[in-house]
Amino acid sequence: MKLELLDQLRQTNPVVLNISNFVTVQDVANGINAIGASPIMSEEIAETDEMVAISSAVALNLGAFSKPQVAHILKMGQSANANHKPLVIDPVAVGAISYRKQVATDLMKQFQVDVIRGNAGEIAALADVEWQAKGIDAGSGDQDLVEIAKAAAVKQQCVVILSGETDVITDGQKVARVHNGTPLFQLHVGSGDMLSSIVAAFCAVSDGDYFEAAQTACLVFAATGELVANQLKEERPGTFAAQLMDELHLVSVADIEKIAQFD
Amino acid sequence: MKLELLDQLRQTNPVVLNISNFVTVQDVANGINAIGASPIMSEEIAETDEMVAISSAVALNLGAFSKPQVAHILKMGQSANANHKPLVIDPVAVGAISYRKQVATDLMKQFQVDVIRGNAGEIAALADVEWQAKGIDAGSGDQDLVEIAKAAAVKQQCVVILSGETDVITDGQKVARVHNGTPLFQLHVGSGDMLSSIVAAFCAVSDGDYFEAAQTACLVFAATGELVANQLKEERPGTFAAQLMDELHLVSVADIEKIAQFD
Amino acid sequence: MKLELLDQLRQTNPVVLNISNFVTVQDVANGINAIGASPIMSEEIAETDEMVAISSAVALNLGAFSKPQVAHILKMGQSANANHKPLVIDPVAVGAISYRKQVATDLMKQFQVDVIRGNAGEIAALADVEWQAKGIDAGSGDQDLVEIAKAAAVKQQCVVILSGETDVITDGQKVARVHNGTPLFQLHVGSGDMLSSIVAAFCAVSDGDYFEAAQTACLVFAATGELVANQLKEERPGTFAAQLMDELHLVSVADIEKIAQFD
Repeated sequence: MKLELLDQLRQTNPVVLNISNFVTVQDVANGINAIGASPIMSEEIAETDEMVAISSAVALNLGAFSKPQVAHILKMGQSANANHKPLVIDPVAVGAISYRKQVATDLMKQFQVDVIRGNAGEIAALADVEWQAKGIDAGSGDQDLVEIAKAAAVKQQCVVILSGETDVITDGQKVARVHNGTPLFQLHVGSGDMLSSIVAAFCAVSDGDYFEAAQTACLVFAATGELVANQLKEERPGTFAAQLMDELHLVSVADIEKIAQFD
Repeated sequence: MKLELLDQLRQTNPVVLNISNFVTVQDVANGINAIGASPIMSEEIAETDEMVAISSAVALNLGAFSKPQVAHILKMGQSANANHKPLVIDPVAVGAISYRKQVATDLMKQFQVDVIRGNAGEIAALADVEWQAKGIDAGSGDQDLVEIAKAAAVKQQCVVILSGETDVITDGQKVARVHNGTPLFQLHVGSGDMLSSIVAAFCAVSDGDYFEAAQTACLVFAATGELVANQLKEERPGTFAAQLMDELHLVSVADIEKIAQFD
Repeated sequence: MKLELLDQLRQTNPVVLNISNFVTVQDVANGINAIGASPIMSEEIAETDEMVAISSAVALNLGAFSKPQVAHILKMGQSANANHKPLVIDPVAVGAISYRKQVATDLMKQFQVDVIRGNAGEIAALADVEWQAKGIDAGSGDQDLVEIAKAAAVKQQCVVILSGETDVITDGQKVARVHNGTPLFQLHVGSGDMLSSIVAAFCAVSDGDYFEAAQTACLVFAATGELVANQLKEERPGTFAAQLMDELHLVSVADIEKIAQFD
């Protein structure tokens, strides 16, 4: 765990380029901003190469899934590879909708992803493990989460983050687990999308160690959410969303170290 | 009024599928989440049937009104009918823009809606009653709101919710009115869109009684807004929006019963 | 500076039509609503003329930059001209992406803009002045901001607002500067987009004096943000965003006069 990456991120203010889920796009941009990076969003394929050129990392959210967006995702993924920019994918709802799984699988044959971040149902789908997914939620199942994450990482040859009560981060061999967090993340649509783009921001300052970047981003995000939740007397998803932005901006490495729980 | 539907909704956590207004999509997803259902959003027509299959109700917001979206709305409405899923329509701005009224009218000939939720100007347009509408607002007029709502319900053969200071809910014969609410709803863009999708969530657990579902959803939403407004000393639309999410999650049947005003 | 325009705006409640940045669209709609105008948003070119007809001002945000949106922007700009509605442009990221600059430049040859609102990097690009821009941020540079704004105003024959720590407003000859504000605006994505649409709302009640409208809108917005920031003990971007909506609704001319700093 390299928490000093948070300070580096804030000093270098990397530009994170996003094709973003239309549902959560403003939240994601604000989250990137709050943590200390600089968001840029695009909907137009003609500006892809220029956008990639000025960016330090790319996050592609497969919740943006109309056909023009899929073409855009393909081009941006390939451009990120060609320009050696770290590439993070959030495979929204591939566990619930077979059409999404098929398109996502096709896409990932055409570029090399560095980090995939999804919930258990999504990661299981990418690993071809049976799993019950329901809507955007994680679903439930009996498989061991670490094994699912490892299988997906081996299959896709990248770092995998399986988000949940415990975040599992693996490169297929090494495994880290982050135990911080709060159930309020699940009550706020866009928490996962925001984490995916924050992972990209950490990759931008990681000097190529995406396993380290991924676990640090998970710890920072989960611990920040927990700090906010600890200040609330009740489960207040609206207040949580606003204060999560506050705390992403204010949280320090020392604050996180005090409550960090990982192995 | 069947307030126990709120508890049923929270126990069964129905999936509500939305084609959503691009202006308010995150708010709508968060509102569905907060009340206790599970949102899923789509922009791609190829995944329509699969999405409908995993959903318990469908909400189509005509604020999403580009031509590809209209084609998507048509297909999703027909798929909802074919799969016997309750179908709610929010006819955004059909009272102000004749192009929207024409497209909406055409759409509703091609599938059968279960509930329409709109403001006075929108419902009047669908009932072919003269009414002055201005922008997204309700406009003002002299016609009796109950008669307008009834006329629209008879014409479209469905339940109609005419939202406003008083919500009028009718199946064309029976009429319910909800008197709770707060002017802050009008100051927050997306309140109406959110209500429409929450109506769909209640329809999902209503065992086919959409008149009951519609009025209960209106009471829950209006009373929740009123509870939030009562805690604010001034008209604070931004704070209201955040706390509305909080209270949709926290509000109980007993809280609502204490202030419920309907007939 | 004509602060009485704020009261006029609230009395007449002008409809502001927007082609809006997909990233910030709900925030912009809520901001227009909060200040006392009435927002209407569109994504469909077929409804352009009808939408312009019911509007009192038009704001086109070039963050909406897919090809269908650019066609829509062109048509709406031309319709605004033909119908003598004030036209405000926000040239998002034209300083960072040459493709955007080229498309924006082409667009502005095909309709006449009344006000352009951008950051230093964006305005410099439109004035053909060298400037370093990074992502959506302003970048930094040595040129004198007033000269850049003047050059852009002369080139585009319109009023230019160069937003930043100090807002520079010019018609190419006369110059006003607004010194109010807060760094929190930069931490909240969408502050600039919101200001652009609020400028359009002030133009709607300005009786054609767009230089006056532009500087008054800047003062109202900057001072409102400053009032909110003064109540916060720390830099809280999420809380700031919610309370900015509150204060846009609550702020009075007298409140603004107390802290106004301009020349």
